Amino acid sequence: MRSFNFFGRFASAFHDYPSLSKIIVVSTVSGGSLIAYAEASTNNGNRGHVSHADAITSNSIAHADANTSKKKKVVVLGTGWAGISFLKNLKNPMYEVEVVSPRNFFVFTPLLPSVTCGKVEARSIVEPIRNIIRKKNIDASYCEAECIRIDPANKKIYCRTARTAINTNSKQGEEFAIGYDYLIIAVGAQVNTFNTPGVEGNSSWFFEQEIEDAQKIRRNVIESFEKASLPNLSEEERKKILHFVVVGGGPTGVEFSGELRDFVNQDVLKLYPTVQHLVKITVIEATDHILNMFDKRITTFAEGKFLRDDIDVKLGSMVTKISENEISTRAKGSDKTTSTPYGMVLWSTGIGSRPLIREFMKQIGQGNRRALATDEWLRVEGCDNIYALGDCATINQRKVVEDIAEIFKRADKDNSGTLRVKEFREIMKDVIARYPQVKLYMQSKRVRDFVDILTEAKGNAAKEKIELSIEEFKSALSVVDSKMKNLPATAQVANQQGAYLAKCFNRMEECEKNPEGPPRFRGTGRHRFQPFRYRHLGQFAPLGGEKTAAQLPGDWVSIGHSSQWLWYSIYASKQVSWRTRALVVSDWIRRFIFGRDASGI
Amino acid sequence: MRSFNFFGRFASAFHDYPSLSKIIVVSTVSGGSLIAYAEASTNNGNRGHVSHADAITSNSIAHADANTSKKKKVVVLGTGWAGISFLKNLKNPMYEVEVVSPRNFFVFTPLLPSVTCGKVEARSIVEPIRNIIRKKNIDASYCEAECIRIDPANKKIYCRTARTAINTNSKQGEEFAIGYDYLIIAVGAQVNTFNTPGVEGNSSWFFEQEIEDAQKIRRNVIESFEKASLPNLSEEERKKILHFVVVGGGPTGVEFSGELRDFVNQDVLKLYPTVQHLVKITVIEATDHILNMFDKRITTFAEGKFLRDDIDVKLGSMVTKISENEISTRAKGSDKTTSTPYGMVLWSTGIGSRPLIREFMKQIGQGNRRALATDEWLRVEGCDNIYALGDCATINQRKVVEDIAEIFKRADKDNSGTLRVKEFREIMKDVIARYPQVKLYMQSKRVRDFVDILTEAKGNAAKEKIELSIEEFKSALSVVDSKMKNLPATAQVANQQGAYLAKCFNRMEECEKNPEGPPRFRGTGRHRFQPFRYRHLGQFAPLGGEKTAAQLPGDWVSIGHSSQWLWYSIYASKQVSWRTRALVVSDWIRRFIFGRDASGI
Repeated sequence: MRSFNFFGRFASAFHDYPSLSKIIVVSTVSGGSLIAYAEASTNNGNRGHVSHADAITSNSIAHADANTSKKKKVVVLGTGWAGISFLKNLKNPMYEVEVVSPRNFFVFTPLLPSVTCGKVEARSIVEPIRNIIRKKNIDASYCEAECIRIDPANKKIYCRTARTAINTNSKQGEEFAIGYDYLIIAVGAQVNTFNTPGVEGNSSWFFEQEIEDAQKIRRNVIESFEKASLPNLSEEERKKILHFVVVGGGPTGVEFSGELRDFVNQDVLKLYPTVQHLVKITVIEATDHILNMFDKRITTFAEGKFLRDDIDVKLGSMVTKISENEISTRAKGSDKTTSTPYGMVLWSTGIGSRPLIREFMKQIGQGNRRALATDEWLRVEGCDNIYALGDCATINQRKVVEDIAEIFKRADKDNSGTLRVKEFREIMKDVIARYPQVKLYMQSKRVRDFVDILTEAKGNAAKEKIELSIEEFKSALSVVDSKMKNLPATAQVANQQGAYLAKCFNRMEECEKNPEGPPRFRGTGRHRFQPFRYRHLGQFAPLGGEKTAAQLPGDWVSIGHSSQWLWYSIYASKQVSWRTRALVVSDWIRRFIFGRDASGI
Repeated sequence: MRSFNFFGRFASAFHDYPSLSKIIVVSTVSGGSLIAYAEASTNNGNRGHVSHADAITSNSIAHADANTSKKKKVVVLGTGWAGISFLKNLKNPMYEVEVVSPRNFFVFTPLLPSVTCGKVEARSIVEPIRNIIRKKNIDASYCEAECIRIDPANKKIYCRTARTAINTNSKQGEEFAIGYDYLIIAVGAQVNTFNTPGVEGNSSWFFEQEIEDAQKIRRNVIESFEKASLPNLSEEERKKILHFVVVGGGPTGVEFSGELRDFVNQDVLKLYPTVQHLVKITVIEATDHILNMFDKRITTFAEGKFLRDDIDVKLGSMVTKISENEISTRAKGSDKTTSTPYGMVLWSTGIGSRPLIREFMKQIGQGNRRALATDEWLRVEGCDNIYALGDCATINQRKVVEDIAEIFKRADKDNSGTLRVKEFREIMKDVIARYPQVKLYMQSKRVRDFVDILTEAKGNAAKEKIELSIEEFKSALSVVDSKMKNLPATAQVANQQGAYLAKCFNRMEECEKNPEGPPRFRGTGRHRFQPFRYRHLGQFAPLGGEKTAAQLPGDWVSIGHSSQWLWYSIYASKQVSWRTRALVVSDWIRRFIFGRDASGI
């Protein structure tokens, strides 16, 4: 945790005084991902740890430590935001952790769009997983393999060695099993093409939040300019090659468009002066606005900026087909299809499940779902000791109305059949703890006391006189379920979930004995832990040209150069280690001094 | 030329006082390539030029400049040492240059072995060709294409767009023609497998001095350690995966072995502690010593160091076959073949011609040669206005004995049938200028006056009394041809040839009028230019562990840490631009601080 030193202290400050968070706490969005800059929920206790590389024993290879066998084995699938956040925050030495992933490094995804046009180097935003592991002082090991099957009955996963492209001609593709006591599924998601014909192949590039995508896109951008500069082409052909189409007006698409525009204005002018005027950038968005998850002010600003930047934004347009030479779109509510020649398509819209997850969902009877359903404690429904978090999972929140009878019974201590305000207030503490949507509803109504909502409903009757029948109680609480919605598939959510789950694991034994969660309304006793609660810490949308829009919590919006500097400083501070921090900052400096690198590597 | 500022001045100093060069001038070898650190033959006149990006017109695309058509068109094939050195030194605005190459960047090849193990970043040692071009104040353009055919009769080359792997779905693979007035062929060479069975495929990696090779090798090295760390392997299998075999004990092979050993000792220990003891490195060399082109002291030191480093050096061994799992070798003079399991083979021995060159050689009747034969002025034999330099060419030096009768006739001014010392001295000036081997012979004999050699042959007779018959003259000069040998295929040679040719082109008109070369013995008049003369400026061999051996001109040898620092400072100074210099130095600093990056990208 040394990496979060400075900002970690800020984070602790916010943790201790959560009301402060409205004023300054900000987080970041990019690549469709949200990340929290202030780890409000992160415990920084092991900040002073020295590296204990020698103490690491890789259980699967050498059983050097006899105690290992007594430890509970935790297998983590994935080295993305969720998996790494879990790993970094896990500190209880009673566990032996094995991380399984085909990718032996973590990627700081919010800076991936910067890689596509050469503002930041790919290597600068990755951290080798083994660097993270050797700094842990708990048993941790890494295995470069892809999980292909989960066997919950026997507590085993089956893996295959990854990356067959690079051969070492032995044991290739051979399967092997790894046993677990706890399984943490954090494999992420893949791009959703909505079955649009011709998307695969045909110069389309998917933006799957992987470093390889960004590198390929970068190479292809340079390649397009080289191709367009060849002597044997007509003006039309050059225009076609330099027509970049971005499908999806979310943060990734918008940021890529902005980066590309910057590249054209700042570097293409010097390096490819003869073709600069032929470049065209089009953004195709199915809804009525780009960045539609942001505040209206930001959307308007972004659309205005793109208009001035000569980026063509096609709103309310659906891509119907991509052929070898043309991309076809249809405007909403129209039957007419328009086709335009294109050189490169970047597809950055929506997410879908990975094959492993689809297979596992069928296996456990969740076949018709979009993602792995978990309860509020991130436990996969219907499985023991399997947890899922990040983009591959979704929390299946329990509705208050489902438990309303039990809640009322528990609340009505004098069995009067009605609730007095005192009884109501008491039960609401537990209800708020158990059902996260209640708090969201109260926040949306801007009240601190649920009773205020009741008094309003009762025509502002005197608070203390209110008595609620079960029907009244039901109708008062039924509205809160309307605030239930799935968490966005963002880095911010994944990061918070990883940290939350690690904290639960750290205190597992303690909380088995003294549960600290809300009472079980349908059973007896209390839940071991508080349910996961997401704190939305705001988001960023870089728009190119050193302009960034930021949406901060508490209805704050910031647009322009100042946000850009906020963005720089926060992104620098959020790097996984001092190493990547130094690299990213030096990349920015290099770009200021030397411009982007246009070599085709 | 701003990039050579500081060392350029040194270079000029040596240029002005060539005798100094024996004392300090040093150059560098690595990756089988020699480069001159002091551009003794480079004119630094345009040091003060500012970038005239706006003045560049790409003739092939936009004929903005009406004067262009009057200019002579020079087409340069290749963006390696020879091509770039020519381009950087060409300053005469009467030419319009078009560079054609599938690779839109120059690679500083001596640092490539450092890339394979993560000491230096690939991007740090490349310079985009367009950056170089836009700093030129002569008409220059670049075309990313591969030349596939040369048509000398019609002064045209045929090209195909390169890199079909990355598609922009238009004009792919389509041929187009480019006309030329002068053609400079500098396409380099490719690896020579000596038709060893099984070399292609089967985990062999060629070291072709391309950035992609180095990146792939790097990825494969990391991959090998990841594979060997998987849980489902036996000790034997792990050992096999971690057996790295280097074929060829030249500078590249030796440097790669040293880098790999450093990586294992410094980083693997921390990152893959469980497999460190299983690593084995073997170097297979067909001759009796590694680094056999170096001084015996260096060879002995390197062999001793490798022995201490536990690198297995198999001398006098030929690779006979590579199968999926084993590499077979045969000791010299033995019939027995030994087979060893291996994980990765790096092939870094010998060079062969590229298909374009083989085809062109057949076309012009040089089908049985190893490389394109040129005369001492780098003109391809049998072609007009076509020049070849660097690894794809070889200078077909004229023997003195072939012209001996003409030389004698020219020398014998009084037609006496014998040469007096005065006549001999006079003609020798021209002979030395025309036939570079004469000077080499004199250097090897350590004499400044050829007459000294004669007096020795004549039993130390009094110098002035010597008279030579044609037979005596012939026998005295016939020995000098023994000093003729092909120049090594190194960056140092290519670099000097490029600079030499550019100087000839710069002064073409001037020298047409006032030829400055030696007299033509078989014709009348003089050659326009002095023939190309190679100055060997010494070489480096990094051995790993911050140890470097340097062989300096004048029989100097330096081994150890001091050479390593010399190596660092010279390699830093030799970078193409301040940009790459800053990057390379910051890479070294990063490695000192953070260690190597072990992520698999």
